[in-house]
Amino acid sequence: MSENLSSILDANSKYADSFGEKADLAMPPSRKFAILTCMDARLDPAKFAGLSEGDAHVVRNAGGRASDDAIRSLVISSEVLGTREWFVIHHSNCGMETFTNEKISGDLKSTFDTKEGYFINWLTIPDREESVREDVSRLRNHPLVSRDIRISGYIFDVKTGKLIEVVKG
Amino acid sequence: MSENLSSILDANSKYADSFGEKADLAMPPSRKFAILTCMDARLDPAKFAGLSEGDAHVVRNAGGRASDDAIRSLVISSEVLGTREWFVIHHSNCGMETFTNEKISGDLKSTFDTKEGYFINWLTIPDREESVREDVSRLRNHPLVSRDIRISGYIFDVKTGKLIEVVKG
Repeated sequence: MSENLSSILDANSKYADSFGEKADLAMPPSRKFAILTCMDARLDPAKFAGLSEGDAHVVRNAGGRASDDAIRSLVISSEVLGTREWFVIHHSNCGMETFTNEKISGDLKSTFDTKEGYFINWLTIPDREESVREDVSRLRNHPLVSRDIRISGYIFDVKTGKLIEVVKG
Repeated sequence: MSENLSSILDANSKYADSFGEKADLAMPPSRKFAILTCMDARLDPAKFAGLSEGDAHVVRNAGGRASDDAIRSLVISSEVLGTREWFVIHHSNCGMETFTNEKISGDLKSTFDTKEGYFINWLTIPDREESVREDVSRLRNHPLVSRDIRISGYIFDVKTGKLIEVVKG
């Protein structure tokens, strides 16, 4: 067993011991909203946005981008599970600002001896605020997103822990 | 301002007030692992797996599936930011077990008057353990995933809070 797994299972055992009434939570998010944000290790959406278990959907990927898969998830969130408001939250000092499609695809070709990386849009972030605006706009204009879902855009500042508004909902 | 936004900003203000040394966290995850899990509101990976800010990447989508976008994120996690172990964690009573591609595509056609839904693979979960095995296998065999990344598969039980092993790492 790896050291990581051992630590995870120890923590999980303690968590389960005091699970209590969380066993009765319903599947649909009680606060009827979803957050789309980055996988970055420094971000804990439950902490920075004040979520308890059962409150809200949290979708995370590299950059917090409105990728096709994030849209798959958010359409299920609204149309199957009833969320009516979404928050797109990117952040400062994001890893996605540090490379380009060409750079990573070239690096992966060296490592894995395959051109597979060139066929992937890595969704890098050349401009932090612009990426938030693009993603809010992509969601608002998607054919499977209801026009009455409120969507806003924020940047989480990793130096202060603060959310900064980019696009009003 | 919506009630949700107002609550989020209140919580965020308190979080930022005691942000302290978290301002100095590095971009690469200090514990060098990533978790891929579901967006479900009942799941808080930081709590159920014992993560602090800075520890690990967390990728989340509907079902916790190893979608193309999850693979984009995990390849960046390992090749750009140095993670060496991944945990795929699906869960009991998942929304993705409650419908089929045909059902949701038909429902969306009624709501939005577009066939767009039929062109999306919604990655539903007809068999919980099988979906974990499939996703671990997809990651292990992907051309951009190093053979020395340890990958295991678990199910989070929403009735007990416990992680149950499905695929050994």
